[in-house]
Amino acid sequence: MTTLLDRIRSGAVPATVAAAADAEHIAPQALAEAIARGTAVLPRNAASRRRPVAVGAGTSTKVNANLGTSPDSADLTAELRKLEAAVRAGADAVMDLSTGGDIDATRREILARSPVPVGTVPVYQAFAQAVCSGRDIATVTADDLFRAVERHAADGVDFATIHCGVTRATIAALRARPRICGIVSRGGALMAEWIVRTGRENPFFERFDELIELARTHDLTLSLGDGLRPGALADANDDGQLAELQVLADLAVRAHTAGVQVILEGPGHMRLDLIADHVRHQKRITGGKPYYLLGPLVTDIAAGYDHITCAIGGAIAASAGADFICYVTPAEHLRLPDAEDVYAGVMASRIAAHAADIVKGVPGAWERDRAMSEARKALDWDRQAALALDPDRVRSERARVALRDPKVCAMCGPFCAMKESSKVGL
Amino acid sequence: MTTLLDRIRSGAVPATVAAAADAEHIAPQALAEAIARGTAVLPRNAASRRRPVAVGAGTSTKVNANLGTSPDSADLTAELRKLEAAVRAGADAVMDLSTGGDIDATRREILARSPVPVGTVPVYQAFAQAVCSGRDIATVTADDLFRAVERHAADGVDFATIHCGVTRATIAALRARPRICGIVSRGGALMAEWIVRTGRENPFFERFDELIELARTHDLTLSLGDGLRPGALADANDDGQLAELQVLADLAVRAHTAGVQVILEGPGHMRLDLIADHVRHQKRITGGKPYYLLGPLVTDIAAGYDHITCAIGGAIAASAGADFICYVTPAEHLRLPDAEDVYAGVMASRIAAHAADIVKGVPGAWERDRAMSEARKALDWDRQAALALDPDRVRSERARVALRDPKVCAMCGPFCAMKESSKVGL
Repeated sequence: MTTLLDRIRSGAVPATVAAAADAEHIAPQALAEAIARGTAVLPRNAASRRRPVAVGAGTSTKVNANLGTSPDSADLTAELRKLEAAVRAGADAVMDLSTGGDIDATRREILARSPVPVGTVPVYQAFAQAVCSGRDIATVTADDLFRAVERHAADGVDFATIHCGVTRATIAALRARPRICGIVSRGGALMAEWIVRTGRENPFFERFDELIELARTHDLTLSLGDGLRPGALADANDDGQLAELQVLADLAVRAHTAGVQVILEGPGHMRLDLIADHVRHQKRITGGKPYYLLGPLVTDIAAGYDHITCAIGGAIAASAGADFICYVTPAEHLRLPDAEDVYAGVMASRIAAHAADIVKGVPGAWERDRAMSEARKALDWDRQAALALDPDRVRSERARVALRDPKVCAMCGPFCAMKESSKVGL
Repeated sequence: MTTLLDRIRSGAVPATVAAAADAEHIAPQALAEAIARGTAVLPRNAASRRRPVAVGAGTSTKVNANLGTSPDSADLTAELRKLEAAVRAGADAVMDLSTGGDIDATRREILARSPVPVGTVPVYQAFAQAVCSGRDIATVTADDLFRAVERHAADGVDFATIHCGVTRATIAALRARPRICGIVSRGGALMAEWIVRTGRENPFFERFDELIELARTHDLTLSLGDGLRPGALADANDDGQLAELQVLADLAVRAHTAGVQVILEGPGHMRLDLIADHVRHQKRITGGKPYYLLGPLVTDIAAGYDHITCAIGGAIAASAGADFICYVTPAEHLRLPDAEDVYAGVMASRIAAHAADIVKGVPGAWERDRAMSEARKALDWDRQAALALDPDRVRSERARVALRDPKVCAMCGPFCAMKESSKVGL
């Protein structure tokens, strides 16, 4: 079949591109050109009726919320509550990373209900089913792994993480310079274990052209997963990570050339002063392909608050050009998040994304802050709430306090600096 | 009397300096030299028995928590709960910014109970008492303002914010290039109003030598307040702000020369990409004097989550050399914080401070992250809790979930990437 990228290359500006561009306040033609160049993508399964959301150069920084069960905690209702919380908080996409319970049913329900693009990591399912039925991981075949991707794509998934950069060569690079935390990506760890145990090459790497064909069939956007992403500051930007990034860069060019939209995934944990250079490196070696970052988390010691750690790293990364932030919730490193964690995580990443959009010059970003500042000076509380990232929270927090003067806030009360300075024309 | 700075200049290494250096794992002589140069301070009233805490070059980034009543919300018990929360969360200093209720009693109680250095903004009291007794602000005399500083210093306050940079000249600079939010510093707004209404010069600027003498009497550290700090991204780094910063830089040199320890206060709201240059500018024009920053908040639209906005800006600022982060709580822009907000605010700023300390190369910072990563790989949960910024939170969050295998976390359950990769020696 013809992919969105094929159609754009042949000169069309499909309606979904126009709709996504409208949501960004940019010209449809500009977005179409970015998609044609491969610096932006519009991840959308051929069968999808979900909102088209653009990711990449010239568009606002997007936020993804990870959902999904684990074998210890598999409750469909809970997952749907998390989906609702993510969307209510303003997530631009969600990923279903389920490894427990009825994985197919969970994914299909999320696909049916999500108004925003949905991504998955298909190999989780292939490996989880083997492990949970007591089989050795080495009994999973290369065809099993491809079939998992096919199954997810056929269900309507918009983008799928494929860990095609965990190869014999990149595993060797990892072994040559041992890490503290080894592999912390689940898909990466399972893939590496499979490669080491079977002695075979990563099938998605070896048979990448088949993956491209499969992606073309459903117009699946490939998200090339960083299976060797660093799980500790001490491991960041090491040979294993950078070797994998180069593999992904080369594969991304092949996918894009073949008419498949593609993005790359990245860190992980990384000290603050390395982030901007890392993002620029990715952009340089990929010809500006969209970069989808988990975090980066700028310290290892903030468990319980890693949504904040992620917001710090995400804001810096996105300011330097990262396009898509995979949120981290306060539950990271501790337990599976609940709906409240999901909401907090999305909000923290949206702050980072917006702070970066001001730097990127994304249309409308700076203007919204300016309008908020004008509403503050005017002590116009309704307008402040309307302009806030989380209007409900502004209203509910403000309602908690009884005020003598409803114009001012309860922080300074009559000693409102803006009111005082207005009196003397400042 | 002889100040700490005098004694250090005459070659002594006072016991308080040695104690503060020990807490930093640095040599007492190195800290003494930094204090002598004025690149670090140890804010400690001559009468204080509180923990000595160093701020500045070569030491870890410190976090301050603002406490204090407002006329609408003046409850001493609530303030003491906030003090307890701030200290429990790990604040390195607190400021009592009370403007309501019995201001003297609140301050004295906080001074009596705080284990960490205490700062105040003495003019709040002078102006608040006038306004609350129905008097015009112009009836406050210059001597009233000095008497407020004297009163706080005599009570044992370790550092005091003095808005000596709001002058006729800097107000003119502000008027020449109008702002959206005008003046958002309470002390700055009151001072500006007083100057405009009385037609007189800022007495702390005009009689700065008297302020120095007063500071010497009690060994009060001067924190030169940024009364013209930007309250909107659109106002950041404008002529008014930078003119005031230059005034403060000049006064800081005078104070330091006269044997008085001094730091400068800064932003406010500021877009992310301007922060590092701004901090370097401050360091350049002050000869490296400590910089005490509120935030910076990297967007205006995140009310309800401004502890996160502050953590983003604070981490960037501190990485670029800022020394002291004044926290912002989730209640900022909405209402007076409660104890829970204070705790959340301190934690967010501590994350920022620590992420920056890794970049600064502060002794022990990087090593703690490394130890945490080793504990993660070993799936040693007790050690992870002990190494975390908030051990109680790690324990309580983890305790919320029943685990089949107590070694792994409930996030991935049996699909623990680190466990899997360990199996194949990665």
